[in-house]
Amino acid sequence: MSPSRFLPVPAWARHYDRSTLGADLLAAVIVTIMLIPQSLAYALLAGLPPEAGLYASIVPIILYALFGTSNALAVGPVAVVSLMTAAAVGNVAASGTMGYATAALTLAALSGAMLLALGLLRMGFVANFLSHPVIAGFITASGLLIAASQLGHLIGVPVSGHTLPEMLASLWNGLPETNLPTLLLGAGATAFLFWVRGGLAKILQKAGLSQKAATIIARAGPVLAVAVTTALVAGLDLEAQGVAVVGEVPQALPPFTLPDVSPSVLAQLALPALLISIIGFVESVSVAQTLAARRRERIDPNRELIGLGAANMGAAFSGGFPVTGGFARSVVNFDAGARTPAAGAFTAGGIAIAALALTPLIHDLPKATLAATIIVAVLSLVDFSILRRAWRYDHADFYTVAATIALTLLFGVEVGVSAGVLLSVGLHLWRNSRPHVAEVGLVPGTQHFRNLNRHDVALHDKVVTYRIDEALWFANARFLEDLVLGRLARSPEVTDIVLMCSAVNAIDLSALESLEAIDKRLSDQGVRLHLSEVKGPVMDRLKGTHFLEHLSGRVFLSQFDAWCALCGSAKRAEPAAE
Amino acid sequence: MSPSRFLPVPAWARHYDRSTLGADLLAAVIVTIMLIPQSLAYALLAGLPPEAGLYASIVPIILYALFGTSNALAVGPVAVVSLMTAAAVGNVAASGTMGYATAALTLAALSGAMLLALGLLRMGFVANFLSHPVIAGFITASGLLIAASQLGHLIGVPVSGHTLPEMLASLWNGLPETNLPTLLLGAGATAFLFWVRGGLAKILQKAGLSQKAATIIARAGPVLAVAVTTALVAGLDLEAQGVAVVGEVPQALPPFTLPDVSPSVLAQLALPALLISIIGFVESVSVAQTLAARRRERIDPNRELIGLGAANMGAAFSGGFPVTGGFARSVVNFDAGARTPAAGAFTAGGIAIAALALTPLIHDLPKATLAATIIVAVLSLVDFSILRRAWRYDHADFYTVAATIALTLLFGVEVGVSAGVLLSVGLHLWRNSRPHVAEVGLVPGTQHFRNLNRHDVALHDKVVTYRIDEALWFANARFLEDLVLGRLARSPEVTDIVLMCSAVNAIDLSALESLEAIDKRLSDQGVRLHLSEVKGPVMDRLKGTHFLEHLSGRVFLSQFDAWCALCGSAKRAEPAAE
Repeated sequence: MSPSRFLPVPAWARHYDRSTLGADLLAAVIVTIMLIPQSLAYALLAGLPPEAGLYASIVPIILYALFGTSNALAVGPVAVVSLMTAAAVGNVAASGTMGYATAALTLAALSGAMLLALGLLRMGFVANFLSHPVIAGFITASGLLIAASQLGHLIGVPVSGHTLPEMLASLWNGLPETNLPTLLLGAGATAFLFWVRGGLAKILQKAGLSQKAATIIARAGPVLAVAVTTALVAGLDLEAQGVAVVGEVPQALPPFTLPDVSPSVLAQLALPALLISIIGFVESVSVAQTLAARRRERIDPNRELIGLGAANMGAAFSGGFPVTGGFARSVVNFDAGARTPAAGAFTAGGIAIAALALTPLIHDLPKATLAATIIVAVLSLVDFSILRRAWRYDHADFYTVAATIALTLLFGVEVGVSAGVLLSVGLHLWRNSRPHVAEVGLVPGTQHFRNLNRHDVALHDKVVTYRIDEALWFANARFLEDLVLGRLARSPEVTDIVLMCSAVNAIDLSALESLEAIDKRLSDQGVRLHLSEVKGPVMDRLKGTHFLEHLSGRVFLSQFDAWCALCGSAKRAEPAAE
Repeated sequence: MSPSRFLPVPAWARHYDRSTLGADLLAAVIVTIMLIPQSLAYALLAGLPPEAGLYASIVPIILYALFGTSNALAVGPVAVVSLMTAAAVGNVAASGTMGYATAALTLAALSGAMLLALGLLRMGFVANFLSHPVIAGFITASGLLIAASQLGHLIGVPVSGHTLPEMLASLWNGLPETNLPTLLLGAGATAFLFWVRGGLAKILQKAGLSQKAATIIARAGPVLAVAVTTALVAGLDLEAQGVAVVGEVPQALPPFTLPDVSPSVLAQLALPALLISIIGFVESVSVAQTLAARRRERIDPNRELIGLGAANMGAAFSGGFPVTGGFARSVVNFDAGARTPAAGAFTAGGIAIAALALTPLIHDLPKATLAATIIVAVLSLVDFSILRRAWRYDHADFYTVAATIALTLLFGVEVGVSAGVLLSVGLHLWRNSRPHVAEVGLVPGTQHFRNLNRHDVALHDKVVTYRIDEALWFANARFLEDLVLGRLARSPEVTDIVLMCSAVNAIDLSALESLEAIDKRLSDQGVRLHLSEVKGPVMDRLKGTHFLEHLSGRVFLSQFDAWCALCGSAKRAEPAAE
């Protein structure tokens, strides 16, 4: 195992030249400008002081650049993970206390450790158990929760709670205390940002800019909103009129911090950390894959786990909170021409400079502006079309999505995503436990066997053939037993039962024991059990057991062989059946 | 829905005649004789007073006879469920206290309610998720735990704990206080019962009895052991020498009792009750099915749930504890000729007479004798051959069984069976998430396509065909994406990828979205995606979506069609490839 397995830097560093450096530097400047207001805003969303957002965008980015495999992924605080952080940490400590910030560090450390463990054990596949509909439902519901949580900042009243009813109730109660200057600033910023997102890019394109350039400039809209509203607050002294501002932010590089590793805190944060890890990983890896595929590159999901794990560990020890790869900023990074992970490292440098030099400038930045950037960003996550798609494709999927959305809104992010995973896995298991089985007959004039309910096929009154369209395993073993024995109880004249196994991809030990039990019970009743078209790998396993020796009937290579051997008189019987 | 759906009595009652009555009565007498010592012993195992065992064999049996569907199943206290009761109730109250007996009633009520709910919702399928290897491992480990727990009674010292290390440690500490008369009685009874089980039946057969009669008489061995050791204790006044006896047992019919429904107790007992319900149901239904099949009868698993639920509810309100269908006694009932559930009702009558009239006779019955009957009965449950079978068939199954046995012994029944279920379901999901996929080529001179690693097949350098041997669902959707995109990254010359779907039994919404993503990414790279041999039900679903419109390639009816259309030049190219 080469050292580059865990430290992929050399792979790209060897070919690093001046032109790559130029491309990476340009992308880093653009992403830095975009990331500053985002970092502050997501720290606010997580219930943390603004500098935590900047710190979470320095060390983690560098560590991801060292260990990750995506050339374009931009790591840092993101909306959904920040919301999940607020929900998890809020159960351990009150916002604004030292315990709260420390719990956020612990959450990042736990999540980092879990991601590293999954990566080192090459267990990236666990993320596969988050189905697309569950993710889509969860992200949509989270977007709504995030928007609701930020509405308070827009009108200058505090919003508490981690579920939609709680948030709306506290918003409603706070409505009479609305602060007018805050509302004006907030509404203005929101309207401006919506316009930037929708109209500005088009105007810029008409003015002759390329689509890419126009989109990138439009992404910098939040910076303009920040600058203008900050200037307004400073110029009109709106802070005195009750407009909440970011305030004093230390002018410093990230501090060295230690997470709280007391067992009670770890126990309380373990499940949220797992959910954050999985959600963050899935989000990140799908962005990274999308961008890699555009350049015919590949990413390695298990190394991505290590990269994200290292990034979160870094966040835990440098005053941050859980981070992951962000969609919007990675796309900007990619479009701006980032070619290697070094672009990320340069971005970290840019943010570090901001943390050292620019923090006095944001003293008067109104929180309403940050809330506006969050609201505009997350509303693009809200997409109910998954409900329509799921309903059309499969009602069961629809119920899973609907339950995920409803539970997330009503009971919070942890309950929502857990329930979604359990529901979708349970649904899959339930379906697997009720395999599709067709009683088949011979299509006259051919060697094909088809479902007797769908086709006009020849049958034999003493020979019953079932085609099983599913692997046989413990949860459906009894189903087959019930089916065969039930059929026999109804048709005592049957002498032979054939199981056509062309679609049986596996038979586990429980299913084998069921087959033995079925065979035993059938022999007790003088009925023989046969198999046909058993797949190679399945046959290999069966040959290692005594099942084939004891089998009352035979194993036929093809179903047609079985028909010929067992229904020799069938062709003569056929006219009578017509 | 006819009333007979839940109350099946009329079905057999209509045809009830004198000869059936005679057969049922004879079976009832035999089962009653066998059930009396068993009931007392399993009450002891559950940590309850002996009369609880008798009470658990009266009302529950009558209720099962009314609602169950098996003609032979004998319901009452059984070893594994009694052990699980002791483990669960021991966490709520100390043995011998009123709270302990009440908690046992609560456990029976909870279990009854769960079984009834599962039956009414027709959710008997949940029991299918207990795989054969997990059950086999769990029963074997439980047998060892039960034997260990009874060894103390055999030497006259108390054994505490619910795990093997705890029990062995307390046994070791108690060893110096061994009571010699108890040890002699216990060892004698154990040796006698082993001999009865092994040798007596053969001797009786040699003496001219039929095998059935010999086996039934041998089953009455415990009654003889009870009679002789009781007489010894009474005659030699061994109680004064420290031999623990059953003591005062009230001479009464079952009392009316009420379970404790305080939320804290219900919460503590909910998981154990669920496990007891599932284990009890699985045990019971497999016995019932085996016996029904011998007479070409059928049982209805969902009505069995209702029958067992009613029985446990009955136990809760009549001084009992959780019950289920016992294997040994049901076989005796069947062999003795029981024809209808009325045999069960008559057995209940027999036990009721015993509870009213015979309890003074068992005052001097030594607990060591009861422990001996339990040890001899449960050691037949211990069967490590499942380990060898599982190892041979599939190492993964072996690890599941081994973990179930080890965890049950080391951490008790609840941890053991829960871990077994989670492991086996997890293993299934893991396998399902890594489908078998083969790259296939044309077998020359045929229309068949086979795995290129196993067969000498014709290939085309620009067309890659994968045969997928698994339903596509969310957990393996990403696997397919990785596979296809990885292949393409390695072979940039490829222009067409065909997915051969002959063994794809289903495609869920996540997998559909993955297919769309794969198609999109392939088109971005100028590669077309095709499908072949899509099954009817899957095709029906796909037709309801936009996938087929947007698909860059085509859907071919057969893989050979795809080959002909895409590899038209293949036959010319072939010689060059050789």
